[in-house]
Amino acid sequence: MAGETTITVIGNLTSDPELRFTPSGSAVANFTIASTPRTLDRQSNEWKDGETLFLRASIWREAAENVAESLTKGCRVIVSGRLKSRTYDTKDGEKRTVMELEVDEIGPSLKTATTKVNRSARGSGEGTANRTGGAWSPTASPEQSGNGWG
Amino acid sequence: MAGETTITVIGNLTSDPELRFTPSGSAVANFTIASTPRTLDRQSNEWKDGETLFLRASIWREAAENVAESLTKGCRVIVSGRLKSRTYDTKDGEKRTVMELEVDEIGPSLKTATTKVNRSARGSGEGTANRTGGAWSPTASPEQSGNGWG
Amino acid sequence: MAGETTITVIGNLTSDPELRFTPSGSAVANFTIASTPRTLDRQSNEWKDGETLFLRASIWREAAENVAESLTKGCRVIVSGRLKSRTYDTKDGEKRTVMELEVDEIGPSLKTATTKVNRSARGSGEGTANRTGGAWSPTASPEQSGNGWG
Amino acid sequence: MAGETTITVIGNLTSDPELRFTPSGSAVANFTIASTPRTLDRQSNEWKDGETLFLRASIWREAAENVAESLTKGCRVIVSGRLKSRTYDTKDGEKRTVMELEVDEIGPSLKTATTKVNRSARGSGEGTANRTGGAWSPTASPEQSGNGWG
Repeated sequence: MAGETTITVIGNLTSDPELRFTPSGSAVANFTIASTPRTLDRQSNEWKDGETLFLRASIWREAAENVAESLTKGCRVIVSGRLKSRTYDTKDGEKRTVMELEVDEIGPSLKTATTKVNRSARGSGEGTANRTGGAWSPTASPEQSGNGWG
Repeated sequence: MAGETTITVIGNLTSDPELRFTPSGSAVANFTIASTPRTLDRQSNEWKDGETLFLRASIWREAAENVAESLTKGCRVIVSGRLKSRTYDTKDGEKRTVMELEVDEIGPSLKTATTKVNRSARGSGEGTANRTGGAWSPTASPEQSGNGWG
Repeated sequence: MAGETTITVIGNLTSDPELRFTPSGSAVANFTIASTPRTLDRQSNEWKDGETLFLRASIWREAAENVAESLTKGCRVIVSGRLKSRTYDTKDGEKRTVMELEVDEIGPSLKTATTKVNRSARGSGEGTANRTGGAWSPTASPEQSGNGWG
Repeated sequence: MAGETTITVIGNLTSDPELRFTPSGSAVANFTIASTPRTLDRQSNEWKDGETLFLRASIWREAAENVAESLTKGCRVIVSGRLKSRTYDTKDGEKRTVMELEVDEIGPSLKTATTKVNRSARGSGEGTANRTGGAWSPTASPEQSGNGWG
């Protein structure tokens, strides 16, 4: 893919994720993220809530099952995905367009929670979680390449 | 803050996070994220790893303690933060500039792992996790506002 | 503001921007951006257009006037802003929610166009364009700080 | 490409872009972007400049020539690209790693400037600027699909 509109959203799940399976057996999880910005009122010097953004989201395959197993209503999450238009017909025969988030990565926020992480038993048999989605070589780590990051 | 350079990174921790405390008692956790892109080789129609990006990151306060408690070497994470320059003197008296990530939100990726989320015991006594960092009103949820997202 | 959902969109204007003024004299420009991703079909090894994302956008004050003066239908633009929900009543008394982009920065893309840039005559009298929105000190430039970027 | 670290930067060029050509004839332009965040000091209720982020950037092919022709020192730009590590040997035989931005899209900001846009004469003969990088069909525009965006 090229030229997609990627977006990162931080917010809370409005309900438990709904897990379904396509006829061919692919898992998909759907959920809505509520994200509320805060404004600093310069008169009162206090933070105030802005209008909440609700974003309908979907995630596929193994990650869908992991989401359904790990997240519940109210969880604060950090989500990265692609914003998409979807057009559908209402029952009145009207065309309507909604925007939805196709999720690439999601995780529970550690801002006010701790998590116990378990490598997924299902999945691709890649051996260790740290190989997923791109390998990295410890021998090339910046600590060893003299760039002063240590 | 305005005009900061925000960035979302997905990658793996190169080691366990290091937790320290400032003299005034603030927690700070440091860690490095290794992010490896993949290229589709159009000749062979196969994915190949690109060069790994190593990004030094820090996170503060309650979240720092949660990170230290929840994440370990190799964990795949999704991170949102602000890219910053930091200039320092080498022992040879040379000035050097490095880029670092000041983390706003981080969570373990659910791509190939499940997590058990526990609301942090420390923290602000806000009561429920879904109030953190911006409230949302269930009565304003899209399911009830007739916009067809249901 | 904190916790807003920022987004970068690259696409084309579907029509000339519409410039209006509020009763108090503030300028606001509205326009729609059409962004079309491309997918590489691995069977045919060819790029195909995906579904276009249409995003309604608004920009305020001096930038609004500059947009109206500089951009026309079909222009390819790069836009950075914040995604917002807006709820309104239809004439049938139905509540409906749309997502819109509140633009912070916009410019014509140089991918297939050249531009002649003119410092805006209106505006804040800040003297030089390079002081806008945050100063930078040439004496602190990386070329002079020995970090090897030269 | 998948899993790359994309980033949007807004800042000013520290000098005119340098245009070069590879032996095979590909154009590449290099430049540095200086981006300075501002902090609201809650004591004084005034904005203060934060530390400037300097980011070395490169752009290729037709866009490189357009950048060299359109932008000069001090121009405020909006840039979207991918953050990359590059490792090199210093003359002392030390390995050093720098981060650079591989630019996908760039344009002059319209915050305090106007521009006159000219479709590039060179280029792919695609006919009209609004076809570049993904077509969109005017017949599918939201104004005509009854979603209330008009």
